[in-house]
Amino acid sequence: MRPIRGYVFDAYGTVFDVHSVVEAGREITGDPVALSTLWRQKQLEYTWLRSLMGAYVDFWTVTEAALRYSIRRLGLSANDAQMGRLMDAYLSLACFPEVKTALGRLAGRPRAILSNGSPAMLTAAVAASGLGAMLDHVKTYKPSPRVYALGPEAVGISAGELLFVSSNGWDVAGAKAFGYQVAWCNRTGAPEEELGVRADLIVSALDALP
Amino acid sequence: MRPIRGYVFDAYGTVFDVHSVVEAGREITGDPVALSTLWRQKQLEYTWLRSLMGAYVDFWTVTEAALRYSIRRLGLSANDAQMGRLMDAYLSLACFPEVKTALGRLAGRPRAILSNGSPAMLTAAVAASGLGAMLDHVKTYKPSPRVYALGPEAVGISAGELLFVSSNGWDVAGAKAFGYQVAWCNRTGAPEEELGVRADLIVSALDALP
Repeated sequence: MRPIRGYVFDAYGTVFDVHSVVEAGREITGDPVALSTLWRQKQLEYTWLRSLMGAYVDFWTVTEAALRYSIRRLGLSANDAQMGRLMDAYLSLACFPEVKTALGRLAGRPRAILSNGSPAMLTAAVAASGLGAMLDHVKTYKPSPRVYALGPEAVGISAGELLFVSSNGWDVAGAKAFGYQVAWCNRTGAPEEELGVRADLIVSALDALP
Repeated sequence: MRPIRGYVFDAYGTVFDVHSVVEAGREITGDPVALSTLWRQKQLEYTWLRSLMGAYVDFWTVTEAALRYSIRRLGLSANDAQMGRLMDAYLSLACFPEVKTALGRLAGRPRAILSNGSPAMLTAAVAASGLGAMLDHVKTYKPSPRVYALGPEAVGISAGELLFVSSNGWDVAGAKAFGYQVAWCNRTGAPEEELGVRADLIVSALDALP
Protein backbone atom coordinates (compact mmCIF):
# COMPACT_ATOMS: atom_id res chain seq x y z
CA MET A 1 0.00 0.00 0.00
CA ARG A 2 1.01 3.62 -0.53
CA PRO A 3 1.40 6.00 2.43
CA ILE A 4 -1.93 7.07 3.89
CA ARG A 5 -2.44 10.80 4.43
CA GLY A 6 -6.05 10.75 5.54
CA TYR A 7 -9.13 8.61 6.22
CA VAL A 8 -12.59 8.65 4.68
CA PHE A 9 -15.25 6.59 6.44
CA ASP A 10 -18.59 5.40 5.22
CA ALA A 11 -21.21 6.11 7.92
CA TYR A 12 -24.07 3.61 7.94
CA GLY A 13 -22.92 0.07 8.67
CA THR A 14 -19.30 1.18 9.06
CA VAL A 15 -19.31 3.74 11.89
CA PHE A 16 -22.97 3.46 12.90
CA ASP A 17 -24.67 0.13 13.50
CA VAL A 18 -27.85 0.26 11.41
CA HIS A 19 -29.13 -2.79 13.26
CA SER A 20 -29.34 -0.86 16.50
CA VAL A 21 -32.90 -0.14 15.31
CA VAL A 22 -33.73 -3.70 16.37
CA GLU A 23 -34.77 -2.54 19.83
CA ALA A 24 -37.38 -0.15 18.39
CA GLY A 25 -38.56 -2.96 16.11
CA ARG A 26 -39.55 -5.19 19.02
CA GLU A 27 -42.60 -3.03 19.49
CA ILE A 28 -44.17 -4.27 16.26
CA THR A 29 -42.64 -7.69 15.61
CA GLY A 30 -41.36 -10.80 17.35
CA ASP A 31 -38.55 -10.99 14.78
CA PRO A 32 -37.00 -7.51 14.77
CA VAL A 33 -33.80 -8.79 13.14
CA ALA A 34 -35.77 -9.82 10.04
CA LEU A 35 -37.34 -6.35 9.94
CA SER A 36 -33.99 -4.61 10.38
CA THR A 37 -32.33 -6.76 7.70
CA LEU A 38 -35.06 -6.23 5.10
CA TRP A 39 -35.30 -2.52 5.96
CA ARG A 40 -31.57 -2.06 5.32
CA GLN A 41 -31.68 -4.11 2.09
CA LYS A 42 -34.57 -2.08 0.69
CA GLN A 43 -32.99 1.20 1.83
CA LEU A 44 -29.91 0.39 -0.26
CA GLU A 45 -31.95 -0.87 -3.22
CA TYR A 46 -34.10 2.26 -3.28
CA THR A 47 -31.00 4.46 -3.10
CA TRP A 48 -29.44 2.70 -6.10
CA LEU A 49 -32.65 2.57 -8.10
CA ARG A 50 -33.55 6.20 -7.55
CA SER A 51 -30.06 7.14 -8.57
CA LEU A 52 -30.44 5.08 -11.78
CA MET A 53 -33.93 6.51 -12.35
CA GLY A 54 -32.66 10.06 -11.85
CA ALA A 55 -35.37 10.42 -9.20
CA TYR A 56 -33.50 11.74 -6.19
CA VAL A 57 -35.17 12.11 -2.81
CA ASP A 58 -33.18 12.51 0.38
CA PHE A 59 -31.98 9.57 2.46
CA TRP A 60 -34.54 10.18 5.18
CA THR A 61 -37.36 9.78 2.63
CA VAL A 62 -35.73 6.66 1.18
CA THR A 63 -35.29 5.21 4.66
CA GLU A 64 -38.95 5.82 5.51
CA ALA A 65 -40.13 4.32 2.19
CA ALA A 66 -37.99 1.24 2.80
CA LEU A 67 -39.48 0.86 6.27
CA ARG A 68 -43.05 1.12 4.95
CA TYR A 69 -42.31 -1.53 2.32
CA SER A 70 -40.64 -3.85 4.82
CA ILE A 71 -43.52 -3.62 7.27
CA ARG A 72 -46.00 -4.61 4.56
CA ARG A 73 -43.78 -7.30 3.07
CA LEU A 74 -43.44 -8.96 6.47
CA GLY A 75 -47.18 -8.69 7.10
CA LEU A 76 -46.72 -6.30 10.05
CA SER A 77 -48.42 -3.04 10.84
CA ALA A 78 -47.33 0.13 12.63
CA ASN A 79 -49.29 3.20 13.65
CA ASP A 80 -47.90 6.70 13.21
CA ALA A 81 -46.37 6.79 16.68
CA GLN A 82 -44.61 3.44 16.11
CA MET A 83 -43.37 4.55 12.68
CA GLY A 84 -42.07 7.71 14.35
CA ARG A 85 -40.16 5.75 16.97
CA LEU A 86 -38.64 3.44 14.36
CA MET A 87 -37.51 6.37 12.24
CA ASP A 88 -36.23 8.25 15.31
CA ALA A 89 -34.02 5.26 16.06
CA TYR A 90 -32.08 6.19 12.91
CA LEU A 91 -31.19 9.55 14.47
CA SER A 92 -29.46 7.99 17.43
CA LEU A 93 -27.86 4.83 16.01
CA ALA A 94 -25.21 3.27 18.19
CA CYS A 95 -21.69 3.45 16.86
CA PHE A 96 -19.76 0.19 16.89
CA PRO A 97 -17.87 -0.35 20.17
CA GLU A 98 -14.35 0.20 18.81
CA VAL A 99 -15.09 3.36 16.81
CA LYS A 100 -14.05 5.95 19.41
CA THR A 101 -10.76 4.21 20.14
CA ALA A 102 -10.10 3.82 16.43
CA LEU A 103 -10.81 7.45 15.55
CA GLY A 104 -8.75 8.66 18.51
CA ARG A 105 -5.78 6.61 17.36
CA LEU A 106 -5.94 8.11 13.86
CA ALA A 107 -5.82 11.73 15.09
CA GLY A 108 -3.29 13.96 13.33
CA ARG A 109 -4.44 13.08 9.84
CA PRO A 110 -7.82 14.19 8.42
CA ARG A 111 -10.70 11.91 9.44
CA ALA A 112 -13.83 12.37 7.33
CA ILE A 113 -17.25 10.79 7.00
CA LEU A 114 -18.65 10.58 3.48
CA SER A 115 -22.27 9.49 3.54
CA ASN A 116 -25.48 9.64 1.58
CA GLY A 117 -27.35 10.38 4.81
CA SER A 118 -29.27 13.64 4.78
CA PRO A 119 -27.48 16.42 6.70
CA ALA A 120 -30.08 16.35 9.49
CA MET A 121 -29.80 12.56 9.90
CA LEU A 122 -26.05 12.58 9.95
CA THR A 123 -25.75 15.57 12.27
CA ALA A 124 -28.10 13.88 14.72
CA ALA A 125 -26.25 10.56 14.59
CA VAL A 126 -22.84 12.18 15.02
CA ALA A 127 -24.10 14.26 17.96
CA ALA A 128 -25.87 11.33 19.64
CA SER A 129 -22.76 9.16 19.42
CA GLY A 130 -20.42 11.87 20.71
CA LEU A 131 -18.09 11.48 17.73
CA GLY A 132 -18.22 15.12 16.62
CA ALA A 133 -14.85 16.12 18.09
CA MET A 134 -13.14 13.17 16.39
CA LEU A 135 -14.26 14.00 12.84
CA ASP A 136 -12.69 16.74 10.76
CA HIS A 137 -15.22 16.58 7.91
CA VAL A 138 -18.76 15.24 7.64
CA LYS A 139 -19.81 15.34 4.01
CA THR A 140 -23.15 14.24 2.61
CA TYR A 141 -24.00 13.56 -1.01
CA LYS A 142 -26.74 12.66 -3.42
CA PRO A 143 -26.01 9.16 -4.70
CA SER A 144 -24.34 9.36 -8.10
CA PRO A 145 -21.26 7.98 -9.83
CA ARG A 146 -19.51 11.23 -8.84
CA VAL A 147 -19.81 10.74 -5.08
CA TYR A 148 -16.39 9.31 -4.53
CA ALA A 149 -14.81 12.52 -5.86
CA LEU A 150 -16.15 14.40 -2.82
CA GLY A 151 -13.74 12.76 -0.37
CA PRO A 152 -10.54 14.10 -1.96
CA GLU A 153 -12.25 17.46 -2.49
CA ALA A 154 -13.26 17.70 1.17
CA VAL A 155 -9.86 16.89 2.65
CA GLY A 156 -7.60 18.25 -0.10
CA ILE A 157 -5.70 14.96 -0.56
CA SER A 158 -5.77 12.78 -3.69
CA ALA A 159 -7.81 9.56 -3.59
CA GLY A 160 -4.70 7.41 -3.99
CA GLU A 161 -3.28 8.81 -0.76
CA LEU A 162 -6.50 8.37 1.21
CA LEU A 163 -7.75 5.25 2.90
CA PHE A 164 -11.46 4.81 2.24
CA VAL A 165 -13.05 2.63 4.91
CA SER A 166 -16.37 0.83 4.53
CA SER A 167 -18.14 -2.24 5.85
CA ASN A 168 -20.30 -2.41 2.72
CA GLY A 169 -18.90 -4.61 -0.04
CA TRP A 170 -20.56 -2.65 -2.86
CA ASP A 171 -19.10 0.57 -1.42
CA VAL A 172 -15.63 -0.98 -1.23
CA ALA A 173 -15.91 -1.85 -4.92
CA GLY A 174 -17.12 1.61 -5.89
CA ALA A 175 -14.38 3.41 -3.96
CA LYS A 176 -11.65 1.10 -5.28
CA ALA A 177 -12.85 1.53 -8.86
CA PHE A 178 -12.65 5.29 -8.31
CA GLY A 179 -9.02 5.15 -7.20
CA TYR A 180 -8.92 5.17 -3.40
CA GLN A 181 -6.88 2.84 -1.29
CA VAL A 182 -9.64 0.86 0.38
CA ALA A 183 -10.04 -1.00 3.65
CA TRP A 184 -12.99 -3.35 3.99
CA CYS A 185 -14.18 -3.58 7.57
CA ASN A 186 -15.62 -7.07 7.49
CA ARG A 187 -17.08 -7.50 10.96
CA THR A 188 -19.20 -10.52 10.13
CA GLY A 189 -16.82 -12.67 8.08
CA ALA A 190 -18.92 -12.10 4.94
CA PRO A 191 -17.60 -13.32 1.58
CA GLU A 192 -16.10 -10.78 -0.82
CA GLU A 193 -18.44 -9.29 -3.39
CA GLU A 194 -17.87 -10.38 -6.99
CA LEU A 195 -17.66 -6.93 -8.52
CA GLY A 196 -14.28 -7.28 -10.15
CA VAL A 197 -12.23 -5.23 -7.66
CA ARG A 198 -10.77 -6.07 -4.26
CA ALA A 199 -10.01 -4.12 -1.10
CA ASP A 200 -6.35 -3.34 -0.42
CA LEU A 201 -6.86 -4.33 3.17
CA ILE A 202 -9.39 -6.28 5.18
CA VAL A 203 -9.86 -5.59 8.87
CA SER A 204 -12.32 -7.14 11.30
CA ALA A 205 -12.90 -3.86 13.19
CA LEU A 206 -11.94 -0.21 12.82
CA ASP A 207 -9.32 -0.30 15.57
CA ALA A 208 -7.23 -2.58 13.37
CA LEU A 209 -6.67 0.19 10.79
CA PRO A 210 -3.07 1.17 10.09
CA MET B 1 -55.81 3.99 -19.38
CA ARG B 2 -55.03 5.22 -22.90
CA PRO B 3 -55.40 2.89 -25.91
CA ILE B 4 -52.61 0.32 -26.13
CA ARG B 5 -50.89 -0.02 -29.51
CA GLY B 6 -48.16 -2.48 -28.51
CA TYR B 7 -46.61 -4.51 -25.70
CA VAL B 8 -43.12 -4.48 -24.23
CA PHE B 9 -42.23 -7.35 -21.88
CA ASP B 10 -39.44 -7.65 -19.41
CA ALA B 11 -37.82 -11.11 -19.81
CA TYR B 12 -36.37 -12.48 -16.59
CA GLY B 13 -38.98 -13.01 -13.91
CA THR B 14 -41.78 -11.85 -16.21
CA VAL B 15 -41.70 -14.19 -19.21
CA PHE B 16 -39.01 -16.60 -17.98
CA ASP B 17 -39.07 -18.12 -14.52
CA VAL B 18 -35.60 -17.46 -13.10
CA HIS B 19 -36.33 -19.93 -10.33
CA SER B 20 -36.46 -22.80 -12.78
CA VAL B 21 -32.73 -23.06 -11.98
CA VAL B 22 -33.77 -24.68 -8.71
CA GLU B 23 -33.57 -28.15 -10.24
CA ALA B 24 -29.91 -27.66 -11.21
CA GLY B 25 -29.25 -26.29 -7.74
CA ARG B 26 -30.25 -29.53 -6.05
CA GLU B 27 -26.94 -30.96 -7.12
CA ILE B 28 -25.01 -28.75 -4.70
CA THR B 29 -27.46 -27.88 -1.94
CA GLY B 30 -30.37 -29.25 0.07
CA ASP B 31 -31.99 -25.80 -0.09
CA PRO B 32 -31.95 -24.86 -3.78
CA VAL B 33 -34.64 -22.21 -3.27
CA ALA B 34 -32.34 -20.26 -0.94
CA LEU B 35 -29.59 -20.48 -3.58
CA SER B 36 -31.91 -19.40 -6.38
CA THR B 37 -33.29 -16.50 -4.34
CA LEU B 38 -29.89 -15.15 -3.31
CA TRP B 39 -28.51 -15.69 -6.83
CA ARG B 40 -31.30 -13.56 -8.31
CA GLN B 41 -30.95 -10.87 -5.66
CA LYS B 42 -27.20 -10.54 -6.23
CA GLN B 43 -27.64 -10.64 -10.02
CA LEU B 44 -29.91 -7.59 -9.80
CA GLU B 45 -27.68 -5.82 -7.28
CA TYR B 46 -24.59 -6.32 -9.42
CA THR B 47 -26.42 -5.06 -12.50
CA TRP B 48 -27.47 -1.87 -10.70
CA LEU B 49 -24.11 -1.32 -9.03
CA ARG B 50 -22.07 -1.85 -12.18
CA SER B 51 -24.36 0.57 -13.97
CA LEU B 52 -23.79 3.14 -11.19
CA MET B 53 -20.04 2.41 -11.23
CA GLY B 54 -19.89 2.79 -15.00
CA ALA B 55 -18.32 -0.68 -15.05
CA TYR B 56 -20.40 -2.57 -17.58
CA VAL B 57 -19.94 -6.28 -18.17
CA ASP B 58 -22.54 -8.38 -19.96
CA PHE B 59 -25.42 -10.06 -18.15
CA TRP B 60 -23.86 -13.51 -18.48
CA THR B 61 -20.78 -12.32 -16.59
CA VAL B 62 -22.93 -10.63 -13.94
CA THR B 63 -25.03 -13.78 -13.57
CA GLU B 64 -21.94 -15.95 -13.11
CA ALA B 65 -20.42 -13.52 -10.57
CA ALA B 66 -23.68 -13.52 -8.61
CA LEU B 67 -23.69 -17.31 -8.60
CA ARG B 68 -20.10 -17.49 -7.33
CA TYR B 69 -20.91 -15.04 -4.55
CA SER B 70 -24.08 -16.88 -3.57
CA ILE B 71 -22.34 -20.23 -3.39
CA ARG B 72 -19.71 -18.82 -1.05
CA ARG B 73 -22.18 -16.85 1.03
CA LEU B 74 -24.26 -19.98 1.65
CA GLY B 75 -21.15 -21.99 2.48
CA LEU B 76 -21.58 -24.27 -0.53
CA SER B 77 -19.10 -25.38 -3.16
CA ALA B 78 -19.36 -26.27 -6.83
CA ASN B 79 -16.80 -27.71 -9.22
CA ASP B 80 -16.45 -26.44 -12.78
CA ALA B 81 -18.90 -28.99 -14.18
CA GLN B 82 -21.53 -28.10 -11.58
CA MET B 83 -21.02 -24.38 -12.18
CA GLY B 84 -21.43 -25.08 -15.88
CA ARG B 85 -24.72 -26.91 -15.36
CA LEU B 86 -26.07 -24.13 -13.13
CA MET B 87 -25.17 -21.48 -15.70
CA ASP B 88 -26.55 -23.60 -18.54
CA ALA B 89 -29.88 -23.69 -16.73
CA TYR B 90 -30.12 -19.97 -17.49
CA LEU B 91 -30.06 -20.73 -21.22
CA SER B 92 -33.18 -22.88 -21.04
CA LEU B 93 -35.30 -21.25 -18.37
CA ALA B 94 -38.91 -22.35 -18.32
CA CYS B 95 -41.42 -19.71 -19.32
CA PHE B 96 -44.38 -19.27 -16.99
CA PRO B 97 -47.29 -21.56 -17.90
CA GLU B 98 -49.66 -18.88 -19.24
CA VAL B 99 -47.10 -17.06 -21.42
CA LYS B 100 -47.84 -18.78 -24.75
CA THR B 101 -51.59 -18.30 -24.41
CA ALA B 102 -51.07 -14.69 -23.41
CA LEU B 103 -48.73 -13.82 -26.28
CA GLY B 104 -51.00 -15.58 -28.77
CA ARG B 105 -53.98 -13.56 -27.59
CA LEU B 106 -52.08 -10.27 -28.09
CA ALA B 107 -51.17 -11.01 -31.71
CA GLY B 108 -51.87 -8.21 -34.19
CA ARG B 109 -50.05 -5.55 -32.18
CA PRO B 110 -46.27 -5.50 -31.74
CA ARG B 111 -45.03 -7.79 -28.95
CA ALA B 112 -41.48 -7.05 -27.84
CA ILE B 113 -39.07 -8.27 -25.20
CA LEU B 114 -36.78 -5.62 -23.72
CA SER B 115 -34.13 -7.21 -21.53
CA ASN B 116 -30.66 -6.67 -20.15
CA GLY B 117 -29.83 -10.30 -20.96
CA SER B 118 -26.90 -10.73 -23.30
CA PRO B 119 -27.98 -11.51 -26.89
CA ALA B 120 -26.70 -15.11 -26.61
CA MET B 121 -28.56 -15.73 -23.34
CA LEU B 122 -31.78 -14.28 -24.61
CA THR B 123 -31.64 -15.99 -28.00
CA ALA B 124 -31.11 -19.32 -26.26
CA ALA B 125 -33.96 -18.79 -23.79
CA VAL B 126 -36.39 -17.67 -26.50
CA ALA B 127 -35.48 -20.67 -28.69
CA ALA B 128 -35.67 -23.17 -25.83
CA SER B 129 -39.11 -21.96 -24.82
CA GLY B 130 -40.48 -21.95 -28.37
CA LEU B 131 -41.62 -18.33 -28.08
CA GLY B 132 -39.72 -17.03 -31.11
CA ALA B 133 -42.70 -16.95 -33.47
CA MET B 134 -44.75 -14.99 -30.93
CA LEU B 135 -42.30 -12.13 -30.49
CA ASP B 136 -41.86 -9.33 -33.00
CA HIS B 137 -38.82 -7.75 -31.35
CA VAL B 138 -36.22 -9.04 -28.90
CA LYS B 139 -34.07 -6.14 -27.79
CA THR B 140 -31.18 -6.29 -25.37
CA TYR B 141 -29.49 -3.38 -23.64
CA LYS B 142 -26.70 -2.34 -21.35
CA PRO B 143 -28.28 -1.22 -18.09
CA SER B 144 -28.48 2.58 -18.00
CA PRO B 145 -31.09 5.25 -17.32
CA ARG B 146 -31.65 5.35 -21.11
CA VAL B 147 -32.84 1.74 -21.46
CA TYR B 148 -36.53 2.48 -21.41
CA ALA B 149 -36.17 4.60 -24.55
CA LEU B 150 -35.30 1.47 -26.53
CA GLY B 151 -38.82 0.04 -26.43
CA PRO B 152 -40.51 2.88 -28.32
CA GLU B 153 -37.54 3.00 -30.71
CA ALA B 154 -37.81 -0.73 -31.45
CA VAL B 155 -41.53 -0.81 -32.17
CA GLY B 156 -42.02 2.73 -33.53
CA ILE B 157 -44.78 3.61 -31.04
CA SER B 158 -44.54 6.25 -28.29
CA ALA B 159 -44.11 5.05 -24.70
CA GLY B 160 -47.48 6.47 -23.66
CA GLU B 161 -49.21 4.18 -26.18
CA LEU B 162 -47.29 1.08 -25.17
CA LEU B 163 -48.02 -1.25 -22.30
CA PHE B 164 -44.80 -2.17 -20.51
CA VAL B 165 -45.19 -5.43 -18.62
CA SER B 166 -42.93 -6.56 -15.81
CA SER B 167 -43.07 -8.76 -12.73
CA ASN B 168 -40.24 -6.77 -11.13
CA GLY B 169 -41.40 -3.92 -8.92
CA TRP B 170 -38.27 -1.81 -9.51
CA ASP B 171 -38.73 -2.24 -13.26
CA VAL B 172 -42.37 -1.17 -13.05
CA ALA B 173 -41.26 2.01 -11.29
CA GLY B 174 -38.51 2.72 -13.82
CA ALA B 175 -40.80 2.21 -16.83
CA LYS B 176 -43.59 4.28 -15.31
CA ALA B 177 -41.22 7.12 -14.45
CA PHE B 178 -40.08 7.04 -18.09
CA GLY B 179 -43.62 7.45 -19.42
CA TYR B 180 -44.94 4.01 -20.38
CA GLN B 181 -48.32 2.69 -19.43
CA VAL B 182 -47.29 -0.10 -17.08
CA ALA B 183 -48.77 -3.41 -16.02
CA TRP B 184 -47.29 -5.11 -12.98
CA CYS B 185 -47.55 -8.88 -13.22
CA ASN B 186 -47.66 -9.69 -9.52
CA ARG B 187 -47.73 -13.49 -9.47
CA THR B 188 -46.84 -13.85 -5.80
CA GLY B 189 -49.04 -11.24 -4.16
CA ALA B 190 -45.98 -9.14 -3.26
CA PRO B 191 -46.48 -5.66 -1.79
CA GLU B 192 -45.97 -2.64 -4.04
CA GLU B 193 -42.52 -1.09 -4.00
CA GLU B 194 -42.25 2.32 -2.35
CA LEU B 195 -40.56 4.14 -5.22
CA GLY B 196 -43.06 6.93 -5.62
CA VAL B 197 -44.83 5.66 -8.77
CA ARG B 198 -47.54 3.06 -9.28
CA ALA B 199 -48.46 0.66 -12.05
CA ASP B 200 -51.52 1.55 -14.15
CA LEU B 201 -52.66 -2.02 -13.93
CA ILE B 202 -51.92 -5.04 -11.77
CA VAL B 203 -52.48 -8.55 -13.11
CA SER B 204 -51.79 -11.88 -11.46
CA ALA B 205 -50.63 -13.55 -14.72
CA LEU B 206 -49.88 -12.47 -18.28
CA ASP B 207 -53.07 -13.97 -19.71
CA ALA B 208 -55.04 -11.34 -17.80
CA LEU B 209 -53.57 -8.50 -19.90
CA PRO B 210 -56.01 -6.34 -21.83
